[in-house]
Amino acid sequence: MIKTVAIQGIKGSFHHIVSQNYFKTNISIVPFMSFDQTVDSVLKKETDAAIMAIENSIAGSIIPNYALIDTNNLHVVGEYYLDIQHNLMALPNQKIEDITEVYSHPMALLQCKAFFKQYPHIKLIEDKDTAEVAERIHKKQLKNTGAIASTLAAEIFELDILATSIQTIKHNETRFVIVKQDNSEIAEAEINKASIKFELDHKRGSLATILNVMSDCKLNLTKIQSLPIIETPWKYAFFVDVTFQDYQDFKKAKSIMDIMATHFKVIGQYKNAKI
Amino acid sequence: MIKTVAIQGIKGSFHHIVSQNYFKTNISIVPFMSFDQTVDSVLKKETDAAIMAIENSIAGSIIPNYALIDTNNLHVVGEYYLDIQHNLMALPNQKIEDITEVYSHPMALLQCKAFFKQYPHIKLIEDKDTAEVAERIHKKQLKNTGAIASTLAAEIFELDILATSIQTIKHNETRFVIVKQDNSEIAEAEINKASIKFELDHKRGSLATILNVMSDCKLNLTKIQSLPIIETPWKYAFFVDVTFQDYQDFKKAKSIMDIMATHFKVIGQYKNAKI
Repeated sequence: MIKTVAIQGIKGSFHHIVSQNYFKTNISIVPFMSFDQTVDSVLKKETDAAIMAIENSIAGSIIPNYALIDTNNLHVVGEYYLDIQHNLMALPNQKIEDITEVYSHPMALLQCKAFFKQYPHIKLIEDKDTAEVAERIHKKQLKNTGAIASTLAAEIFELDILATSIQTIKHNETRFVIVKQDNSEIAEAEINKASIKFELDHKRGSLATILNVMSDCKLNLTKIQSLPIIETPWKYAFFVDVTFQDYQDFKKAKSIMDIMATHFKVIGQYKNAKI
Repeated sequence: MIKTVAIQGIKGSFHHIVSQNYFKTNISIVPFMSFDQTVDSVLKKETDAAIMAIENSIAGSIIPNYALIDTNNLHVVGEYYLDIQHNLMALPNQKIEDITEVYSHPMALLQCKAFFKQYPHIKLIEDKDTAEVAERIHKKQLKNTGAIASTLAAEIFELDILATSIQTIKHNETRFVIVKQDNSEIAEAEINKASIKFELDHKRGSLATILNVMSDCKLNLTKIQSLPIIETPWKYAFFVDVTFQDYQDFKKAKSIMDIMATHFKVIGQYKNAKI
């Protein structure tokens, strides 16, 4: 049973939104300032699970988070997709003309750069976290200061939204995973997606052979990514996500792939969040 | 013939090092502050080619650069691998104890964080570019100030290196590509690597079928990466790199894949930089 969840960022952050949307029951969230710290808290059993952004439609896979999950042998027990929308917010009763400085995470500033071109009087300043700026504006009642954050952050820290969805690329879907130290307790009947990792030699046709097994076992591939194995030339690690209708099919594929590939590992088996 | 090359960053940057190592003949480099600007200069024919970092062993693929190359229909005509090493540098005759502030690119600061834990008196400050800080220290003769940059930057801007290879992960290989607007003029006999892109439906076995073709045509896969196609659910784009011994084998595979996959495209065919 998951009761406490480690998230990156404070209340009002995108990880907080995911924790609210994913968990139907009441859970308490524990905020951390880095992904390393969220994983540490799970390993030390201070929290039951962690939520981690793992890929997004603009920047692709977040490889350091894959590495954190893999090297610490955490298990993915669920996934959630969130369409990330950035909003400009400030203390109530201020207009965009009153804002002289906007603080946010470098990535958020970058994604909203085009919007601010219309407002050359606003200075953009890099900060640690999107929601934390919203909190600071609220706590210190900072006038003339804007934050770029979620609508949830605006709600929690009683700020007014001056402009919605100000990022240049309107569709920015981010995939989050829920990770735990032990394997999931999801019933087999509910499992219809899995994340696996394996290694192959740089030998002609070796990946094709594995994919043929997946196909024969009725698995659909939804993601594949190769990563060279550091310090081991000509060896590659593959991270693959597959969906399936029947868990028995996946079980069959697993037992074959385990023989055919080196270091075969199931990173997680869970419920597909896309219908 | 490539005479002028657009690079991201100023002289002494890692892109500058790549331009020196890759081109045997004398070329002139044109520095830009973003990848977008380097690509623009190639499209406007202000420069003959651009050098772009495309993936590295720590963070994986640099997806926005893949997108820049793909959407602007640029051609990859070469590749180069550089092991990125960060060094702490300052004006001559200063010791590490004299340094109170170090400026660098956020990514460089992040990669060297562990090193600076031994020196809590040093304040780390984010800046635009690694080499530009070295240049500024030199120009303004800034004392007590450090830069994190390449040995080439230290050389060019007459700084002393106080500590070498200060990044936490010692092996940080980055792959760069050389892109042009027209197709390469490399002789067919020299071509032994290619980057291709194609789209497939989310249909069981569709990728396996394509990989079987590659394998049958004696192509070796060195990289594969799927990206969901934005706004088109259940369709995936694949970026694949292959190596081969005989260009005729690749030609044969091309003609088959062109029929089997949607939007099949050769992003580049060039000489493999790894032996």
